[in-house]
Amino acid sequence: MTFNYQAAFQKALGEVHAEGRYRVFADLERDCGRFPQAIIHKDDGSTQEITVWCSNDYLGMGQHEAVLSAMKNAIDHVGAGAGGTRNIAGTTHYHVLLEKELADLHEKEAALLFTSGYIANEATLTTLAKLLPGVVILSDELNHASMIQGIRGGRGPKMIWRHNDVEHLEELLAQLPEDQPKIVAFESVYSMDGDIAPIEEICRVAKKYGAFTYLDEVHGVGLYGLRGGGVAQRDGVLDMVDCVEGTLGKAIGVMGGYIAGSAELVDAIRSFASSFIFTTALSPVLVAGALQSVRILKEAQSMRDEHQARAAHLKMALEEKGLPVMPSESHIVPVFVGDPVHCKAISDRLLNEFGVYVQPINYPTVPKGTERLRFSPTPLHTEEHVEHLVDALDALWAECKLARGELPTDRIAAQ
Amino acid sequence: MTFNYQAAFQKALGEVHAEGRYRVFADLERDCGRFPQAIIHKDDGSTQEITVWCSNDYLGMGQHEAVLSAMKNAIDHVGAGAGGTRNIAGTTHYHVLLEKELADLHEKEAALLFTSGYIANEATLTTLAKLLPGVVILSDELNHASMIQGIRGGRGPKMIWRHNDVEHLEELLAQLPEDQPKIVAFESVYSMDGDIAPIEEICRVAKKYGAFTYLDEVHGVGLYGLRGGGVAQRDGVLDMVDCVEGTLGKAIGVMGGYIAGSAELVDAIRSFASSFIFTTALSPVLVAGALQSVRILKEAQSMRDEHQARAAHLKMALEEKGLPVMPSESHIVPVFVGDPVHCKAISDRLLNEFGVYVQPINYPTVPKGTERLRFSPTPLHTEEHVEHLVDALDALWAECKLARGELPTDRIAAQ
Repeated sequence: MTFNYQAAFQKALGEVHAEGRYRVFADLERDCGRFPQAIIHKDDGSTQEITVWCSNDYLGMGQHEAVLSAMKNAIDHVGAGAGGTRNIAGTTHYHVLLEKELADLHEKEAALLFTSGYIANEATLTTLAKLLPGVVILSDELNHASMIQGIRGGRGPKMIWRHNDVEHLEELLAQLPEDQPKIVAFESVYSMDGDIAPIEEICRVAKKYGAFTYLDEVHGVGLYGLRGGGVAQRDGVLDMVDCVEGTLGKAIGVMGGYIAGSAELVDAIRSFASSFIFTTALSPVLVAGALQSVRILKEAQSMRDEHQARAAHLKMALEEKGLPVMPSESHIVPVFVGDPVHCKAISDRLLNEFGVYVQPINYPTVPKGTERLRFSPTPLHTEEHVEHLVDALDALWAECKLARGELPTDRIAAQ
Repeated sequence: MTFNYQAAFQKALGEVHAEGRYRVFADLERDCGRFPQAIIHKDDGSTQEITVWCSNDYLGMGQHEAVLSAMKNAIDHVGAGAGGTRNIAGTTHYHVLLEKELADLHEKEAALLFTSGYIANEATLTTLAKLLPGVVILSDELNHASMIQGIRGGRGPKMIWRHNDVEHLEELLAQLPEDQPKIVAFESVYSMDGDIAPIEEICRVAKKYGAFTYLDEVHGVGLYGLRGGGVAQRDGVLDMVDCVEGTLGKAIGVMGGYIAGSAELVDAIRSFASSFIFTTALSPVLVAGALQSVRILKEAQSMRDEHQARAAHLKMALEEKGLPVMPSESHIVPVFVGDPVHCKAISDRLLNEFGVYVQPINYPTVPKGTERLRFSPTPLHTEEHVEHLVDALDALWAECKLARGELPTDRIAAQ
């Protein structure tokens, strides 16, 4: 009997269904100029007007007039795609300019574009392990899937430190020989909880033991720091970060990823990373849009202030109703549910009854038992939007008899 | 003494320089509407008009008026980026429509978009290894870096069969237990040599031993088959291919990748692949452009015929001068050099003295000792372009006293 592939796929899918975490993608149509309003296409062919509450387009730059113009100009000027890898006909002048702009944004000598932030992490961490023989990577336990894939890809030894726990990190570093290469890899803003790493303390300990520091700023770029260079810029510690990794797909509003660091680091990754070398370059259309967006964000402190104010306002309004807001220090506002089936059901009802679109965040994105709804307010969400959302949640929490007040700290801490 | 990271990066780069394979990216500015003509920006700040001879925009769809219009409409309608992962606010109606269109293109039930062809291969092969416990992957020895990364990522056993050697494949398959899951992974057009796999024979052997067939058609999509569904469509054997992988970044002219297969296969990859789940969705601008491009390519047999005619003409013209064209069966025209320093020098002189842009193809893209120039003629290259190129090569071959006539078959075969 030969193997039954279809049955194997069905079995795997059956398990996802049984655990209540089968994902159905919402078929959305953004309405440019009216974000966060959008249209959702339903299975029965009907459509519904909704408010998007879970986008990573944190400042609405994806509909900024100047960004859109820059993209349209690039289309007229050079066309749709890059037409090749960066080395073979795929580097356009836009790529060169954006890499300079991003290096400047992060106060580094050089930057390198990737097709996504995922690939920036995967390519850089895998390649660093090849370039630094015997390196050990010390990774925060809540690091993003893309960093984990990059670390695994390098096939070298790794050590996991407890989330944002600098003492634990130091304990691990102290066990290693002084001359062994070490990479301390972590994020600034952890997007599922909204907490922020103590970057200065982490870097200080890393440097004390001669480690290379690798910081994922994908949820910080554009949003923190006087020029939008991220949390490390806000904290004035960019000089202690050896490699900053960022994305063009969240606050910048377009798509793509990058790293910034020393000229030698960037040149080495450029020269050795398989998933950089052997892939079609980012479309010049995206690059032109991101270039314009970064230039705007460097001067956009008032937008950053509004963004923080809106997030603070939402947290307060939720807390006033006793809704279980998780203790976020950033613009991200997670509300605890703790069960995948409830989480999906509330999300469905928010959509169908209240026109509020927020995805349930279930395993594997977060650990089982910590399922949540995760809101990302933008400066474009009005007071009315916030009020409508809070009222809707309040009503559903009452109706479904969900817990209010104290969070189950044992489960959250267990992450 | 702590470790010196900068010195390690410099050492690695020094080796690349010493081997003559340090890559300098050409800073290009395509001139939309005039492809293959473009402008190159030089280090001294000057610019030069050139003819691009190494783009993967094989049919010039990257400057097709209807594709560009579709992209501009999408910008006006929905904005720049998707704003999230496919699951969290990032699926737009364009994504849904393009996945249907691609499934239809390849005569399959479903399709799934990825941010690149690289990721489509990496994600799918890695995830298949997880979904099919005990699977062994049988991989053609010349498979692309992205397939190799996907196979490594799955961490299961693999067997390498000699390039396009069906007998060797059968020998390996025959060694395996009947009920063990097996994946036969290969490409249709091998882009560095231009040869084409015997898809029917490979699939027949695979099916005889109960294997799942995985076919990378990135250099075939849009170019072969009556509707542009690839070489497997041309050969009438799509029903024997369980998973087709393709790209939106070559003949389609935009950017992104995909797979097509059974509904269950696609749903399982969608539900389990880390590099699909945890990354920002393709920009709807790219998706809208690709959707238009695919629709045009389904009806574009005359463009495909012209493309093949142009490639045949170039091969003939090169052979008439005794230039060492490698035996390509496809639209790809590689000319053998066999040394990285010569290869780079000829490429530089073609650019500077003749305005011909073609990148040297060196290790790690091809094995050492098989360095080459690789031309991709398009229907937009005129007879004058071809004549100018052949004359330029003829002059340089004479001046540099490079070999003509017979190819060093031992080195090419050693691949």
